[in-house]
Amino acid sequence: MVDILHRVGITTSQEAVYEALTTIEGLAGWWTRDVRGDGDAGGVLQFRFEGAPEPNGFDMSVLEAKAADRVLWEVVAGPEEWIGTHVSWDLTTEDDYTIIMFAHRGWQQPGDFMHHCSTKWATFLMSLKALLETGTGAPAPDDERVSNWH
Amino acid sequence: MVDILHRVGITTSQEAVYEALTTIEGLAGWWTRDVRGDGDAGGVLQFRFEGAPEPNGFDMSVLEAKAADRVLWEVVAGPEEWIGTHVSWDLTTEDDYTIIMFAHRGWQQPGDFMHHCSTKWATFLMSLKALLETGTGAPAPDDERVSNWH
Repeated sequence: MVDILHRVGITTSQEAVYEALTTIEGLAGWWTRDVRGDGDAGGVLQFRFEGAPEPNGFDMSVLEAKAADRVLWEVVAGPEEWIGTHVSWDLTTEDDYTIIMFAHRGWQQPGDFMHHCSTKWATFLMSLKALLETGTGAPAPDDERVSNWH
Repeated sequence: MVDILHRVGITTSQEAVYEALTTIEGLAGWWTRDVRGDGDAGGVLQFRFEGAPEPNGFDMSVLEAKAADRVLWEVVAGPEEWIGTHVSWDLTTEDDYTIIMFAHRGWQQPGDFMHHCSTKWATFLMSLKALLETGTGAPAPDDERVSNWH
């Protein structure tokens, strides 16, 4: 098992970050505009990415959503390498920042796609930071291109 | 042992990427302007980051520099968590892109600093991409801020 790990700090409240992780409007502002479902505990979120190869997105079961501290998703549909993996968001406050400790755990293999997703997660975290600090994120399909895989 | 892994694609030649990884001018264009030393195999590169806490940078021993395919560094001085870790760059060509498979291997613990470095590496890889595609990277001290740790 291998994990993707990141840490970012955003100059806003934990509540604002939590809202961006648990509401459709928030998620659509930094990850993908094509998102629907329910971001509260027990809900399922459906993320789709225009133009991506099939399956062109992920369904996340929301295992935990503890305001405004922690969110945990399990991937229940999507690319085979993602299914059964877990995405967690742990929020704390340091200085004037909300710190996000991000983990996408449970990859079977550190393959090309995992390397790609590690870099893409970083750019989406920077999109989340931009959304909350400037009002404008870069969600798909306007996300930052990192390679030929977009 | 845990690893930081990334994949980026840059619309330029493997030779141009290799040069940006092995020459002082290249490295100063995307990672930190305060770099000196010798980027060829057997050399040592000294990277420093203005304003960072002591030790404010890293010394990398260049274990491999195989034009224009692979570069491997070993960290021989710097923050304790970095010493003895290895940074590798494997270059291939796909479509119109030079693909970089990046790895920073050998971390003892997946701690806060490793999470931070994972995100920072992604932003520096995007700086390298920008340098080679647009002529302008974002090396320290003008690097993208990801958190209170900069």
